Amino acid sequence: MSNKFKRNERIGAIVKILSDNPNKIFTLSFFTTQFNAAKSTISEDLIVVKNVFEKLQLGKVVTISGAAGGVKYIPKTSKEENEEFLYQLCDRIKEEGRILSGGFLYLIDLIYDPNVVSKIGEIFASNIEYDDVDCIVTMETKGIPMALMTAKAMNLPLVIIRKNTKVSEGPTISMTYVTGSSSKIETMSLPSKALKPGSKVIIIDDFMRGGGTIKGMIELMKEFDTEVAGIGVFISTVQPENKLVSDYISLLELDVQGDKIIAEPNLKTFNHEYRD
Amino acid sequence: MSNKFKRNERIGAIVKILSDNPNKIFTLSFFTTQFNAAKSTISEDLIVVKNVFEKLQLGKVVTISGAAGGVKYIPKTSKEENEEFLYQLCDRIKEEGRILSGGFLYLIDLIYDPNVVSKIGEIFASNIEYDDVDCIVTMETKGIPMALMTAKAMNLPLVIIRKNTKVSEGPTISMTYVTGSSSKIETMSLPSKALKPGSKVIIIDDFMRGGGTIKGMIELMKEFDTEVAGIGVFISTVQPENKLVSDYISLLELDVQGDKIIAEPNLKTFNHEYRD
Repeated sequence: MSNKFKRNERIGAIVKILSDNPNKIFTLSFFTTQFNAAKSTISEDLIVVKNVFEKLQLGKVVTISGAAGGVKYIPKTSKEENEEFLYQLCDRIKEEGRILSGGFLYLIDLIYDPNVVSKIGEIFASNIEYDDVDCIVTMETKGIPMALMTAKAMNLPLVIIRKNTKVSEGPTISMTYVTGSSSKIETMSLPSKALKPGSKVIIIDDFMRGGGTIKGMIELMKEFDTEVAGIGVFISTVQPENKLVSDYISLLELDVQGDKIIAEPNLKTFNHEYRD
Repeated sequence: MSNKFKRNERIGAIVKILSDNPNKIFTLSFFTTQFNAAKSTISEDLIVVKNVFEKLQLGKVVTISGAAGGVKYIPKTSKEENEEFLYQLCDRIKEEGRILSGGFLYLIDLIYDPNVVSKIGEIFASNIEYDDVDCIVTMETKGIPMALMTAKAMNLPLVIIRKNTKVSEGPTISMTYVTGSSSKIETMSLPSKALKPGSKVIIIDDFMRGGGTIKGMIELMKEFDTEVAGIGVFISTVQPENKLVSDYISLLELDVQGDKIIAEPNLKTFNHEYRD
């Protein structure tokens, strides 16, 4: 790109590039080449860009020093916007007609909504440490959209555990597990080469009742010699109180009593982990 | 937000807001409130913003007139960047060790990669008309990440067809179909209320060999009284030449001959649909 850019235009362009690529490091040289501008000019631009993100609470732009240095954008959500977003989601969850037979809730219109899940991904990225994490793990199907958006926000690859052994992915490691809610025995499997031994992963899932599924995922991770560094679930139920998994954050707490839905943002879980 | 913003900062912030929310209309008043600025000031800002997107070929920012008017950002990819991206992907597809028994390819590291699929989503959004489309439809599992990113780029909801009837989503419409490749009979199902009658949808999937799966999806859409307005697949195979589906775009063409992988960007398919 050989055109000359005005400062305004460079600022806009830098914001677009950083924002589209969370947690990716861009060198100063990348921008000097891109905009045909001096390092000092780009440095001044970056100060303005950092300001924009700070003032609007849109996340942080940080400078990484050293040979592999540059700047990167780290998505961060503010406590206020999270509260507002989660309360709105709770209102939608409480809408009439969501309760299905068996006390299940119809939620796929929400958890497949790209705008909802991209926000959920940013909230997870703001409240789960991922500094030396290698990938995001989820189990098909309903958690995939929010897990993908979490992976996007953290700039990490996504690994999807399948419920059936598929012939088309090469050798797999499979495991049976007992779902906490219905006590059924299910199978989960993952291609052997999907995870490197010694990796650190974060588990993301849409829903946790008893915790059986996530406990199964944790055990599968052991088979891969992989450490679970964090667990994020979108909705956890109030009942049963004792889950099979203890160390997790959940964004919403849910209780369905007959035809009454109680849904509340689980602010206490991550209150102190929000940025100031 | 009551702070005063400098022009540079407003430009950066407007770019961030528009870029994070493709195809969402923001009114002038939204920005005047957000930045505590006059309409004339914001109008001038928007001219700069439009310029940034044009100059960097990052998409278009268009003004919508009328009562529901405002500005929105439409993601558009340039032919050059698509070519570069797709050729790089082909190189990765041709890497050693991808061929599995049965001539299948191990591709999940690519098609679950958030950065790869967000780019694929933008390419689909640049080459499939979606002006009066109501949602994106895909079938689990491997197409979900790219379908979600397509839905995000188009600002449309995502609908996921399941391979098994799930009890937890209320009444479903199910259908059997014959996969083109292995001639197996499979089931697909979708909750009755996932689609409104009379809707227009775009089908997105990761892989097409014979076209049996997509043909099945088209037939399922008929059961929902829904029109298929476009079909986008990431990879189509050279063989068989005659697919069960004719009207689609595919980004890559693939041929596996023994231990040789031939993968090429399918540029001819959408050559004329790229923006100039």
